[in-house]
Amino acid sequence: MEHILSAGFEKLLNIGISLSSVQNLDELLDMILSEAQFLTNADSGSIYLVNGDTLIFKTSRSNTYFKKWGEAKTKQVFKSFEIPITKESIAGYVTITGKTLNIPDVSKIPAEAEYKHNTNFDIKYGYHTISTLVTPMMKHDGTIIGVLQLINSQEADKVVPFHKEHERIIMSISSQAAVSIVNVQLTEQLKSSYLDTIFRLSAAAEYRDKETANHIKRVSYYARMLAEKLGMDKEKCELIYWATPMHDIGKLGIPDAILQKPGLLTDEERKIMQYHTVIGAMILKGASSEVLAISRLISLSHHEKFDGTGYPQGIKGEKIPLEGRIVAIADVYDALSCKRCYKDAFPEEKVLSILKESSEKHFDPDLLKIFLDNMSSVNEIKDKYADTEKDFENIRNIESIKINELQG
Amino acid sequence: MEHILSAGFEKLLNIGISLSSVQNLDELLDMILSEAQFLTNADSGSIYLVNGDTLIFKTSRSNTYFKKWGEAKTKQVFKSFEIPITKESIAGYVTITGKTLNIPDVSKIPAEAEYKHNTNFDIKYGYHTISTLVTPMMKHDGTIIGVLQLINSQEADKVVPFHKEHERIIMSISSQAAVSIVNVQLTEQLKSSYLDTIFRLSAAAEYRDKETANHIKRVSYYARMLAEKLGMDKEKCELIYWATPMHDIGKLGIPDAILQKPGLLTDEERKIMQYHTVIGAMILKGASSEVLAISRLISLSHHEKFDGTGYPQGIKGEKIPLEGRIVAIADVYDALSCKRCYKDAFPEEKVLSILKESSEKHFDPDLLKIFLDNMSSVNEIKDKYADTEKDFENIRNIESIKINELQG
Repeated sequence: MEHILSAGFEKLLNIGISLSSVQNLDELLDMILSEAQFLTNADSGSIYLVNGDTLIFKTSRSNTYFKKWGEAKTKQVFKSFEIPITKESIAGYVTITGKTLNIPDVSKIPAEAEYKHNTNFDIKYGYHTISTLVTPMMKHDGTIIGVLQLINSQEADKVVPFHKEHERIIMSISSQAAVSIVNVQLTEQLKSSYLDTIFRLSAAAEYRDKETANHIKRVSYYARMLAEKLGMDKEKCELIYWATPMHDIGKLGIPDAILQKPGLLTDEERKIMQYHTVIGAMILKGASSEVLAISRLISLSHHEKFDGTGYPQGIKGEKIPLEGRIVAIADVYDALSCKRCYKDAFPEEKVLSILKESSEKHFDPDLLKIFLDNMSSVNEIKDKYADTEKDFENIRNIESIKINELQG
Repeated sequence: MEHILSAGFEKLLNIGISLSSVQNLDELLDMILSEAQFLTNADSGSIYLVNGDTLIFKTSRSNTYFKKWGEAKTKQVFKSFEIPITKESIAGYVTITGKTLNIPDVSKIPAEAEYKHNTNFDIKYGYHTISTLVTPMMKHDGTIIGVLQLINSQEADKVVPFHKEHERIIMSISSQAAVSIVNVQLTEQLKSSYLDTIFRLSAAAEYRDKETANHIKRVSYYARMLAEKLGMDKEKCELIYWATPMHDIGKLGIPDAILQKPGLLTDEERKIMQYHTVIGAMILKGASSEVLAISRLISLSHHEKFDGTGYPQGIKGEKIPLEGRIVAIADVYDALSCKRCYKDAFPEEKVLSILKESSEKHFDPDLLKIFLDNMSSVNEIKDKYADTEKDFENIRNIESIKINELQG
């Protein structure tokens, strides 16, 4: 037994460190489970997280099924499971009571036990569950956020009960895991609030220009897609996605009389209108955040043209920041392909021919080629975030707003 | 020795868990240091973090000085220190080489060693450093983010060298600490970017109404101060602080012709103008984020009056959400006490008498009393975020913007 404890000691320290360095929930859960499986020599295992009054299978690993189905399919099959939290199931019992269950043989659970082994799964997939070790994942304050279940500990190719020492190791991993999971969830929540705030405030600002909230979304998704297809790293693609919604924020500095003028602008008015790029960069200037720094670049450069005939600086080619060249394509494509209050959507054929004609003139030809080579992704985004008639209803039509519904 | 290892085992597991649950950097560093001190029976200790080419003392603990000066003063005194990262200092040597130094007696460091003990500190504060244990705090990828230094291990009231076992324990704590520190720093960066984004976009939206960016800041700080003095929990105060900047975001839906009209509005125009509260709530509606939910409440209710004569709903008393009652005071106080483009700042006496007259009519009398009881905090905020003449320069004065400076 001594070697288990001693190996466990080193391992636990490293797990604590590793866990807290993972920032993605799925990766984190897989790592926790994989370590737990390794330390207990378990054939299979699952992590369930509490969601209201159900437990959701978040990740599963199984040597047997990995061999039989491969890793991807196994995870897919198991991921869809969800069980109610009641004392009748083993995982539910552990969630409710906070007790660890170390069951040597699930077929010999005493009849008087409150829980029983659900055989549906074994029957459906031809698995033979014998021993199982199930521990709650508990936060500092005692809240149980999920359950770690290990199945069929192996010794010399035979299924054996989990050792007493395994209990201690797994309980320790579970509480470390709980903290890391909560941390990652908090960070994910924070990020999603941040992104939601950017989209809402940017969309609200665009509203004066009669753009819909979906316009902002489509342009941002097109930009991210282009960045991905260009092979930019994942983090940079996310930054571009977050930064793009703010590309027109400088329009807040343009008076209604110009921004909303029907018909052609005078030279003087056009000059002022073009300054939205510069005003946007002013608003975003001097921020320490990477998102805002990229947003500033995009604001300043998304109306530059590849041949140097754009504004505000008239820079050309690769002098125009890559992010600006990306958003230029995304923004113009959206303007052409979607309905605006002053025009209908152009047919796809016409849109593509306008874009192609503008290659090397308005657009970076390499980027444009990538964009056009990925029209199926483009169309997917376009359809997913299509404007409805309702989006065009003016929110200035204020009488129709039901104030009661806003009180929440 | 066995008991050290065994105590260390349990402790280390718990430390790993505790560390990853702390979300505030100062608290985290203090906890790391306190545990390290406890496990090695050290009289004193410091944590330094790498900042460019210097090491900054981030936190210190010392039984000797805590007794002599108390905890607060000790931390204050030590916090101001900063040393260059060179091999000549012990901490610098550890930072550069990544080696742990366990020095039994600093007065006996061999002359050929690259580092030496800097006696300035001992001389200045009358301390007598003998033994020291200094370990690097290293991330997974090998980057050293700081150094943990322990001084004068005690045994039976005598200073003794640190044990070999202490080295192992402290190295392990240090690497757990490094991960936790980096996590907390990342979260703090994310939060500060988020907050910066809210303030910038909100300020930009207010710009159409000729409000300065500082107006948004002052109102948000007043609101947080009131929430704090009311005794709301820290997290709620922060939420109010984050949510307040967006209280007028609905003005994006009000046309320039009304928003910027000089002189009095017609009844119809006033009705439209008042709808900025409702439009704001529409923009913020349905968000899952707590910040935006509170912001929506504030937007909808910050023009309600305590006697029910406000808008848009004309609700009264405690039917008006507390957050709205708070921002009402903050917003009106700021309008009265600061210069606007259409009016000068009122003298403090006049501001206070207007507020007092409005108690129970416009404002919640209990909240107003708290506000008025804390005029020193109010004035501090007012002075810190005072508008300068430059803030009133119109950014529409676009010719003066230097585009080159925006390219960054």
